[in-house]
Amino acid sequence: MNYSVIRRILGIVLRFESAFLLLPCITAVIYRESEGWWYLACAAVCFVLGSIMAYVPSKRDIFYTREGFAAVALSWILLSVFGAAPFVLCGDIPSFTDALFETISGFTTTGSSILADVEALSHTSLLWRSFTHWVGGMGVMVFILAVMPMTGGYNMHLMRAESPGPSVGKLVPKVRETARALYVIYFGITVTEFIFLAAARMPIFDALCISFGSAGTGGFGVLADSCASYTILQQGIITVFIIMFGVNFNAYYFLIMSKDKKEAFRMTEVRAYLLIIAFSVITIAINIRQQFENFFLAFHHAAFQVGSIITTTGYATQDFDRWPQYSRALLVLLMFIGACAGSTGGGIKVSRILILLKSAKREIISYIHPRQVRTIKMDGKASDTQMVHGVLRYLVVYVAVFAASFMALTVFENCDLETLFTAVAATFNNIGPGLSKVGATMNFAFFSTPSKYILMFDMLAGRLELYPLLILLVPDLWKKAR
Amino acid sequence: MNYSVIRRILGIVLRFESAFLLLPCITAVIYRESEGWWYLACAAVCFVLGSIMAYVPSKRDIFYTREGFAAVALSWILLSVFGAAPFVLCGDIPSFTDALFETISGFTTTGSSILADVEALSHTSLLWRSFTHWVGGMGVMVFILAVMPMTGGYNMHLMRAESPGPSVGKLVPKVRETARALYVIYFGITVTEFIFLAAARMPIFDALCISFGSAGTGGFGVLADSCASYTILQQGIITVFIIMFGVNFNAYYFLIMSKDKKEAFRMTEVRAYLLIIAFSVITIAINIRQQFENFFLAFHHAAFQVGSIITTTGYATQDFDRWPQYSRALLVLLMFIGACAGSTGGGIKVSRILILLKSAKREIISYIHPRQVRTIKMDGKASDTQMVHGVLRYLVVYVAVFAASFMALTVFENCDLETLFTAVAATFNNIGPGLSKVGATMNFAFFSTPSKYILMFDMLAGRLELYPLLILLVPDLWKKAR
Repeated sequence: MNYSVIRRILGIVLRFESAFLLLPCITAVIYRESEGWWYLACAAVCFVLGSIMAYVPSKRDIFYTREGFAAVALSWILLSVFGAAPFVLCGDIPSFTDALFETISGFTTTGSSILADVEALSHTSLLWRSFTHWVGGMGVMVFILAVMPMTGGYNMHLMRAESPGPSVGKLVPKVRETARALYVIYFGITVTEFIFLAAARMPIFDALCISFGSAGTGGFGVLADSCASYTILQQGIITVFIIMFGVNFNAYYFLIMSKDKKEAFRMTEVRAYLLIIAFSVITIAINIRQQFENFFLAFHHAAFQVGSIITTTGYATQDFDRWPQYSRALLVLLMFIGACAGSTGGGIKVSRILILLKSAKREIISYIHPRQVRTIKMDGKASDTQMVHGVLRYLVVYVAVFAASFMALTVFENCDLETLFTAVAATFNNIGPGLSKVGATMNFAFFSTPSKYILMFDMLAGRLELYPLLILLVPDLWKKAR
Repeated sequence: MNYSVIRRILGIVLRFESAFLLLPCITAVIYRESEGWWYLACAAVCFVLGSIMAYVPSKRDIFYTREGFAAVALSWILLSVFGAAPFVLCGDIPSFTDALFETISGFTTTGSSILADVEALSHTSLLWRSFTHWVGGMGVMVFILAVMPMTGGYNMHLMRAESPGPSVGKLVPKVRETARALYVIYFGITVTEFIFLAAARMPIFDALCISFGSAGTGGFGVLADSCASYTILQQGIITVFIIMFGVNFNAYYFLIMSKDKKEAFRMTEVRAYLLIIAFSVITIAINIRQQFENFFLAFHHAAFQVGSIITTTGYATQDFDRWPQYSRALLVLLMFIGACAGSTGGGIKVSRILILLKSAKREIISYIHPRQVRTIKMDGKASDTQMVHGVLRYLVVYVAVFAASFMALTVFENCDLETLFTAVAATFNNIGPGLSKVGATMNFAFFSTPSKYILMFDMLAGRLELYPLLILLVPDLWKKAR
């Protein structure tokens, strides 16, 4: 591995984090909270350390997938460690393990919290917590690529390591232009949501944090009951926007910036995503009908929860842990499906699920018509066989990491298997809440320290789509580049 | 599809079933039970009906994978329907759904029971129940191929549809010789187990039923507490034999009939299988140590349960539902892994798991060394890429059927998800007991009728390794052959 170039990239990332940390500092000024000083101090440390690391030029320009993956994985770990520091220093989250858990949960847009009482936090820390969602949603590297000219040909390697989905769609030939287009769309929809929420009379601070949380499909809120105490209108606005943030951003690009606007509606993945949501909302609404005054309310809460879970956001207006088993089980299934590739959501991704199901169907048909050649079509075009096999192997690695994490948890925790299974599902797919003891009204504080580190690993592995984090565990990676 | 040839095969299968049904008739004579008359009547019906169906020659000889798969799947359904009839007629299991569930559970070597009190059954029915395990274990088609000369080239298609594992190892060039060799080994080990159990002073009737049940890796016993009241020695003998029946039968072939006996020890799958067992037994023994007087007892019961679950037998000497979570979770994991390919056990099979894990490892390494070509090796030889991709697709179909069954159950049952999840795991992998309400001391009687049919589908799909049963659901199959 080429260490010097990775050192430089980590330095640049730290400098960006120092800039991000200024946002909570501004909040501290507005709310006159002394916690802001600690955020300023951390920003200063990040700036100095980052500048030193980035100053010394790298010796060689060797940069392959391996360097890209390692740089991204290490950046996310470094970001989280320095992002956790102010929580500990200002006293809002005294334990470092807990603060790191909360920060990783933030950057990976998971939204699982170790806080029993989120309302006890300072505004400064609340805003930082929600802002990590926004930064992590579209990706730090993508942000850096969007605003900073990078020398060398390693842009694509970095982008590929951080962007979700089986194939990274370069919207335009240049990586930098693509990154910029993504962030323009991302910023635009976030601001729109904020305006809508503010217009619906949500307090400005709440509206800002909720917009960050739904844009990144994160799930950290500012109230102890997540979104339950907001008005029906406010909840409805959030529902629409979280579902929008789960759509493949290419669709928006086609709609807004491309000449052929119809291309957006031809995307198989987006149509499947909306169909799954429609099916789930309707069946769950019927299933939970008894618990509500009228069908509209059942539909409203079904839509909120389905949108929140499939996009892996994790906000809640209802304790869905108390819903009937069909609804609970379907929500767990949606956790695995996840949002579209190229969105800010997590999970396996709808496009992968489609490719997997089409492979399965083709396999069954092949026993009836063995000589018929069947390629798998997506968006009307035949898929690359290599890509399809890549998705099949992704599923294997996914299942293996899931099973290993689950088994590791059972060694350290002796609570019911539903809790442990959904705790892994909720963190690995970057959702937030699970069922039972990690349900929507509960938190992750009761886990032992080793379990918390296992779940942190799962959050990072889920957000970075396995490989960038997993290769860190292979000793071969750490050999010096020849 | 070529209907006439399938009709003939089904006729032959029915005639064989009439022969199988004579065994409970003999039992009835010995124990002077009137239930035997019903078994004799069913045998007669099967013989007459089978003879009529097999008498008219088939018009064409077209016979491909499609016909092989359909013939096998339909045979198993037919066998189960006619095998269930005497239970209903003699009054031992009055409900047809329940009787069918019990018979499918028998033939597929699952061992899940709807009986609350197994000891209330007549000896005749008990023996039939256990004998279905023995017949289903190595396969009905394999048996027919072993004893009957079949015209046409369709032996291999039939054998392939019924035999477990990613690739059917023809031990010798001729299918018939292979089938015969398998049954000779199967019969030999079963008789040996019977002799050992009888020598250890187990009642002869119990010894016979337990031998059938462990040979087929089924799990039906004759006592309400499964194997808990047998002596330590008897339990120890069962442990050794169930683990033996989970070994790839090719290993025995190499040991007994081949010149190169060392080949048996070179089989990667068998070594992995024994390693998984050793690891599981030791860690579970440590985990459950507190519940027993001494380490030997903990080890003994850990070994019995691990052997019983990984081979998908399902006998129990202990209510492992009350063990600590690590042990419970590991047993659930073993349910999915299953036994070796080419054994009588179910599950995904150790060889598939090995291929999947090696694929996963290769994928991770490929991001570090992209240009390094890595083939997956099994038994020291490079695996066929086509076969590896077939295993990857198998996992996808497996997960899809699992998820669909689980979701379907939640529609009809409103009990805890652990019960529903392990009910699917226990039937789909042909184990028998699951956890919670379907734990080792419980039964499947409480399920609603639709749920029972879903679980019956899972048992058949699991035993026949998905495709033979799944193609029955494709309308294309039912078109007449051109």
